[in-house]
Amino acid sequence: MRTYKAPVRDMRFVLNEMLKVEEIYRSHGFEEADADTINMILEEGSKFASEVLTPLSKVGDQHGCTLHEDGSVTTPPGFKEAYQQYVENGWGSMCAEPKFGGQGLPDSLGQVLNEMIFSADISWGMYPGLSHGAMNALMVHGTEEQQHTYLSKLVEGSWTGTMCLTESHCGSDLGLLRTRAEPHADGSYRITGEKIFISSGDHDMAENIVHLVLARLPDAPKGTKGISLFIVPKFLPDEQGGVGERNGVRAAGLEEKMGIKANATCVMVFEDAVGYMVGEPNQGLRCMFTMMNAARLGTGIQGLGVGEASYQGALAYAKERLQMRSLSGPKHPDKPADPIIVHPDVRRMLLTQKSIAEGCRALAYYTATVVDTARHAKDQAERDHADKLLHFLTPICKAFMTESGYESVNLGMQIYGGHGFIKEWGMEQLVRDARITLIYEGTTGIQSLDLLGRKVLMTNGETLREFTKIIYHFCKENGEREDMKPFVEPLAALIKEWGELTTKIGMAAMQDREEVGAASVDYLMYSGYACLAYFWAWMAQVALDQLAAGSGDEDFYRAKVFTARFYYRKILPRTRGLAATMLAGAPAVMDLEEEHFSFL
Amino acid sequence: MRTYKAPVRDMRFVLNEMLKVEEIYRSHGFEEADADTINMILEEGSKFASEVLTPLSKVGDQHGCTLHEDGSVTTPPGFKEAYQQYVENGWGSMCAEPKFGGQGLPDSLGQVLNEMIFSADISWGMYPGLSHGAMNALMVHGTEEQQHTYLSKLVEGSWTGTMCLTESHCGSDLGLLRTRAEPHADGSYRITGEKIFISSGDHDMAENIVHLVLARLPDAPKGTKGISLFIVPKFLPDEQGGVGERNGVRAAGLEEKMGIKANATCVMVFEDAVGYMVGEPNQGLRCMFTMMNAARLGTGIQGLGVGEASYQGALAYAKERLQMRSLSGPKHPDKPADPIIVHPDVRRMLLTQKSIAEGCRALAYYTATVVDTARHAKDQAERDHADKLLHFLTPICKAFMTESGYESVNLGMQIYGGHGFIKEWGMEQLVRDARITLIYEGTTGIQSLDLLGRKVLMTNGETLREFTKIIYHFCKENGEREDMKPFVEPLAALIKEWGELTTKIGMAAMQDREEVGAASVDYLMYSGYACLAYFWAWMAQVALDQLAAGSGDEDFYRAKVFTARFYYRKILPRTRGLAATMLAGAPAVMDLEEEHFSFL
Repeated sequence: MRTYKAPVRDMRFVLNEMLKVEEIYRSHGFEEADADTINMILEEGSKFASEVLTPLSKVGDQHGCTLHEDGSVTTPPGFKEAYQQYVENGWGSMCAEPKFGGQGLPDSLGQVLNEMIFSADISWGMYPGLSHGAMNALMVHGTEEQQHTYLSKLVEGSWTGTMCLTESHCGSDLGLLRTRAEPHADGSYRITGEKIFISSGDHDMAENIVHLVLARLPDAPKGTKGISLFIVPKFLPDEQGGVGERNGVRAAGLEEKMGIKANATCVMVFEDAVGYMVGEPNQGLRCMFTMMNAARLGTGIQGLGVGEASYQGALAYAKERLQMRSLSGPKHPDKPADPIIVHPDVRRMLLTQKSIAEGCRALAYYTATVVDTARHAKDQAERDHADKLLHFLTPICKAFMTESGYESVNLGMQIYGGHGFIKEWGMEQLVRDARITLIYEGTTGIQSLDLLGRKVLMTNGETLREFTKIIYHFCKENGEREDMKPFVEPLAALIKEWGELTTKIGMAAMQDREEVGAASVDYLMYSGYACLAYFWAWMAQVALDQLAAGSGDEDFYRAKVFTARFYYRKILPRTRGLAATMLAGAPAVMDLEEEHFSFL
Repeated sequence: MRTYKAPVRDMRFVLNEMLKVEEIYRSHGFEEADADTINMILEEGSKFASEVLTPLSKVGDQHGCTLHEDGSVTTPPGFKEAYQQYVENGWGSMCAEPKFGGQGLPDSLGQVLNEMIFSADISWGMYPGLSHGAMNALMVHGTEEQQHTYLSKLVEGSWTGTMCLTESHCGSDLGLLRTRAEPHADGSYRITGEKIFISSGDHDMAENIVHLVLARLPDAPKGTKGISLFIVPKFLPDEQGGVGERNGVRAAGLEEKMGIKANATCVMVFEDAVGYMVGEPNQGLRCMFTMMNAARLGTGIQGLGVGEASYQGALAYAKERLQMRSLSGPKHPDKPADPIIVHPDVRRMLLTQKSIAEGCRALAYYTATVVDTARHAKDQAERDHADKLLHFLTPICKAFMTESGYESVNLGMQIYGGHGFIKEWGMEQLVRDARITLIYEGTTGIQSLDLLGRKVLMTNGETLREFTKIIYHFCKENGEREDMKPFVEPLAALIKEWGELTTKIGMAAMQDREEVGAASVDYLMYSGYACLAYFWAWMAQVALDQLAAGSGDEDFYRAKVFTARFYYRKILPRTRGLAATMLAGAPAVMDLEEEHFSFL
């Protein structure tokens, strides 16, 4: 059975020593988010994730969910009780604004908690996770009455939320959606249609479910400009705001999936269901994007979480499993063989996992504080700047952290050898669970088009420059330090190249728009490795400073510097291939007729 | 439901136009293996794989196997009948020597059939597949009586075989194994112990099962030098050679696995089971390697097979699924959206799959003909040369073809988006089934040590040079051709670099043996890409010649040249990163204390 302990020491390193979040929080007016509160969240969150959620993960995978004839869904044993505990401990309301009943803590602390939850079990984490998307949308776009009726319940945790976007014929292309919303005399709407792949679509963990549904008004323009957003509660609120009459929405099917089996992925059927419009008519996609940006960072953090969980499992096994002798002579002559952690290739796999987890943690927490800044900084210019950074970083977080998380869980399984392929150790479940993160909330391909096409090229590279400027300053500040040379020199070269590659693709794209899609995934992965190069250099600098200052915890800082070096030597060179392949040009993929892909 | 059709046109291209196998077969004395026979195998094999086996794949995944109280295992519905058909059609005996009842066709044709079978269903394919390992061992090391009693039954297909190596505490490190073999007065042995992860360990498809078991004699030296190989039949042969008394071996458990659920992966318990030694005492590992080398190529071909199957599924979907418009304007304005094959990133994924499948097919069939040559060439020097090549190519085939096959099935799933993650389309099953191929028959890490340590460095680079010499001649022959320049120039540079990298690692390894393990997987992957660069250049040359000669089938040859270019531009540059990371040095992975990998 898999175990998990939150990497609290490393989380503290990133939050306190690297990002210095206390200062950020103070400047944004989060008076409550002091050292004690952060500590409490780390300690208690860790306990909740490791003691309550982690043991549920295998149970959930084995049981899955059950759909009953009446369209209700039962979650695996223990899921409901864990959710009650989550609500009672106040985890769900932690980052919501006090005026809606929340505790008013910064979102970035919520993302730290998310990492722990997703390390424990993505399936479980998606029940409250989807609520947060719904909360975000209603906080920004809901009317006061909608906020009073629905948002307060979501914050309280007695109701949960969903996002109902996908239909069977439209996933990435929401412009094709068909679900109809007919206006009703009382100002409400009647929603009819079928949605698929609805995560947490129905369950028994909360008394009501608030579906946020994309649908078309009768007179709506075609395509994405004719989509509106509606609240469709499972039970209509009664006079007192409690659970009233059953609404015309039900789960009509549960998908059989590769992983995240304990999350109810539902086919949701809406039959004249009562709905209430959120925001303006035909502005539904805009409203939905409010949910989706947060959800994308959250999905990236799922990649981080499973990667960390897999690393912990693999490391424990590598220290225990005895196979063969070290190439440089027995390390444990008293034992029948050496533990496999003595073997350089096992170490390569472990350190790849480690450098991915710790590098992505820095990227994720950094980005999460940029979200705080974009929302709460007192200065408008600061908010705008953060917003630009966020546009740039969000698709990278979503796609790179899930792709590298998937690499990590596969390495974790590989370290177990044949034992990784059987269910007993939980390593194969991490692979199956992680696999969806590369797909939902926009595939890697979709994120890459968002990054390269919309965020970088459509702003003439401005968002990229905003970020590389920060790195440039870092390089300048640390350029004279001998101990930082192994990081600063390649990093400076990299950001120069990053800009040049962008310019080249941009020039090519002016001739042929297909150049964007032909380069985009390579560009995104390059960008991800470049981001991590910055964060690893930064972490190395913090650790080297601590070592120079003779702080305690020397082993920790040494390991950090070692891992930074590992990243630069063993991982970062992947950019060499990507720099070449992203310039291969559109004809390399476009100049083959559809019918000549195969001659069967 | 997934469908599959054998890529017969492409198989013919590799066999006939590129490798010219008819000439090879003729020179080795395979008179029967003429054009008609090859055609028949391709046509009938394709029918069997697509019509009989492919529909069983999902059934098998859903049903799995059932272990009964008496230790017998039932396979999924249809498995047994398909096996009967396989036997009746003579597929199982195709490549066995006529003196054992076989049809005496070259092994390489058996590998072509294997590709089809593994594309259809790896789980099913492993029942007859394991028999072939046992046949190989008995053909080389069995006594005449053993061949008469067991080999003939295996060839006939009425009995099947297994390989019983792994024990719970020893996978890669067979030196640790504990299963005991006590000599008995009549010259037989009594085998006692427990083996795990025994593929096809028990089933209802054949009347008897011949286990080939590694065990220790009472006086055996420790480690790998004290292991002997034994035949342990499930039922002892009776006087007439038929199925007699039940032997003391039974399945005591079935592993719950991530994939290949229809193959019975058994815990096998041996309790005083009657066994017969194969080969000399304490020479068991050598005998086992006879089975394992063939099995390693076969496992590589599993990677090829699943990759091809996934490509077919993804291509069909990409042509049908309508999502969004082409970046360069609508391609099908009559439809609500364009099929996703218009999008460059979808094409990148499809072409990656295509270039992997076709490139690995060339590598696999080439290597399979080298097996033929090593065994059957009339000239000793030719056999020896082929043997050297084989030593070099086998670990590359096993590890590179499974790693790239796994990449391919993941891309195939990604092309389906959310639909890839649900069971309906069969794409996620391919991912789950493919995952084990990177582990069993020696993990990628084990193969990489075999390649770099044993095969390359221990021969002072001789095996590498034997292979690069062939490439060097190819480059020389085609160096003047304008149309081959895009291939020959980078290929020539690559083989030069390949040698230089090898020398550098070899030099470093003389100082520190850990350098081998620190570089080995990067080296293996580099070698795989380099091999495929050669085969893609060769395929391009054949196709360009056909185009120049004005042969028919122009579209096919054009597509081949296009894919070769794609490989050189979009895949081969991955070697840039690998060339750097393999030289990162052992300290980059070794200089961190075990206890400092984590600070939880």
